[in-house]
Amino acid sequence: MTSNIKTIEWRDNALYLLDQRLLPFREIYLKLVSADEVADAISNMVVRGAPAIGVTAAYGVAIAAINASKGQKGAKEKFDTDLKTLITARPTAVNLARVINDMSEQLIQGKTPNVQLADEILQHAHKLHREDIATNIKMGDLGAQLIDAGSGVITHCNTGSLATAGYGTALGVIRSAWADNKLSRIYADETRPWLQGARLTAWELYKDNIPVTLITDSAAAYVMSTGVIQWVIVGADRIAANGDVANKIGTYSLAIAARYHGVKFMVVAPEMTIDMNLASGREIPIEQRNASEVLELAGERIAAPDAKASNPAFDITPAELIDALVTDKGVIMKPATDKMLELFA
Amino acid sequence: MTSNIKTIEWRDNALYLLDQRLLPFREIYLKLVSADEVADAISNMVVRGAPAIGVTAAYGVAIAAINASKGQKGAKEKFDTDLKTLITARPTAVNLARVINDMSEQLIQGKTPNVQLADEILQHAHKLHREDIATNIKMGDLGAQLIDAGSGVITHCNTGSLATAGYGTALGVIRSAWADNKLSRIYADETRPWLQGARLTAWELYKDNIPVTLITDSAAAYVMSTGVIQWVIVGADRIAANGDVANKIGTYSLAIAARYHGVKFMVVAPEMTIDMNLASGREIPIEQRNASEVLELAGERIAAPDAKASNPAFDITPAELIDALVTDKGVIMKPATDKMLELFA
Repeated sequence: MTSNIKTIEWRDNALYLLDQRLLPFREIYLKLVSADEVADAISNMVVRGAPAIGVTAAYGVAIAAINASKGQKGAKEKFDTDLKTLITARPTAVNLARVINDMSEQLIQGKTPNVQLADEILQHAHKLHREDIATNIKMGDLGAQLIDAGSGVITHCNTGSLATAGYGTALGVIRSAWADNKLSRIYADETRPWLQGARLTAWELYKDNIPVTLITDSAAAYVMSTGVIQWVIVGADRIAANGDVANKIGTYSLAIAARYHGVKFMVVAPEMTIDMNLASGREIPIEQRNASEVLELAGERIAAPDAKASNPAFDITPAELIDALVTDKGVIMKPATDKMLELFA
Repeated sequence: MTSNIKTIEWRDNALYLLDQRLLPFREIYLKLVSADEVADAISNMVVRGAPAIGVTAAYGVAIAAINASKGQKGAKEKFDTDLKTLITARPTAVNLARVINDMSEQLIQGKTPNVQLADEILQHAHKLHREDIATNIKMGDLGAQLIDAGSGVITHCNTGSLATAGYGTALGVIRSAWADNKLSRIYADETRPWLQGARLTAWELYKDNIPVTLITDSAAAYVMSTGVIQWVIVGADRIAANGDVANKIGTYSLAIAARYHGVKFMVVAPEMTIDMNLASGREIPIEQRNASEVLELAGERIAAPDAKASNPAFDITPAELIDALVTDKGVIMKPATDKMLELFA
């Protein structure tokens, strides 16, 4: 079972990106035919999520190469500029730089692209696209194997086709388990303050005909207390060597409630999320985002006029609360440093 | 230390109610001079919270009596009609009926009000008003005694001057502890879906110069993990004989997170909240409110167009997670049926 949602699509020699800034109320694809347009789309968050950004950047290099292969004057200089523009589109997205640097080393090697090289670069972009989806499907199936038939699940934030090149991480496990007829109920936290659950997860599961029920974040513990939930399934932004997980604010709260109810807790993330140089989650800084995200919604004030807010964007779930860490390299039950070293040394 | 916020005020022979439907963006007092106007204000949620509704109803009877004492033709019939109109303004508010029935029995006894009786009824309303505030101040002081200096607290929903005749229950404890210079930090959960924390609690603490920081509901566990919180302090809608507490959705999640972090959990509620006929929280039905409260905000859709939602309005916090139950009859540490029977039999 794959997803019907095409976040990133190559068609008629152009890159089409689903503009996630407008979801769920407008479904608009942007057609991009220059590296500048691709870099702008990355900068302006048309596309979000590290894997999705990496694949988009690879297609940006392909577009630059196709344009350079037309043999116009200054083609080589323009191509080099395009690569720099792409690499700096989102300075904190580490895998964006990695994707472009890898392509430069392995394929481009300082050449001016001709038609043949442009095609090789495009095929490489297609390969990365396919591989990211394949990685997600693999994790989806590994995770689904842990779930018994008739289970209820809760997920948090958006970890689906919209955050990856397709299929999703935690939402990929839910897709696979749903395809295997294992899920009796799927709940999605709305995920304040940005409402990724209400806006994106609900939208993409509806598109794929997977029934989901939204709840406020603070209703998750109540839903667990009714006995209908067997697994909480979430993604990860960063994972430390001991298995501590940094993820969207609210993940930690879910993990504590899951443990209290004997509900299992699964984290689904590709190897590139794991940083074996961080001994524990304590070394991961928690980004404090603007208070306006809590105080306003869609530009409208929702809180009392003089109210102050604190807005931590992430929290750390300690490994002791995690029952299963599902990666593309395999599954670790009850993650701890020794098991992590064995798989990721 | 009292509160500057006058939710309910008697002035110049009229009842003034702060229109809570317009908070926090507009601060409008409605002047009410007939029993019909008072009944409408109760029906239409100008005023909310059982104690506030009870005191408002008492002033409604006083207004009816003052109008009846003017000796017009049919004054007795109009007065009887007014009492019925008031008693049916909010069918589920049990203490509204109790307040009016008590006044009928003890004061009115079938008489047509004259100036003297009207004044007696008004004095009785003033007494109920003062007593509710006194009850809250007493609970506030009892609760504050449990808190060590330098403590950080988290509260949920609105339990303040706006939900009572004044001062508040859980927010009353926070007022008393703040006045005693015991609090280093006060956090308020925004309290989705209705945002009582963001709209009402933040508004009233700002009005009273008590600094508060709003957080999303799912950030509470993260804040606890930083070590700055010593108490979670909440109100209650209904308490069973074994000490289980029904309160606003999200209370249970906070209680679980508090226990995980070794943070103490306090429930503050007057005796009238306690129903010794309910053996445990399992007997308390959980009201499911309209999904639109989760899917929309201020009439605007915030979730994906086809999304479904579940919206439990309350949850049950088991007594085992409660460290202190503060009532106007005294404090019970680690509530359980035997201790509850001793105080409330």
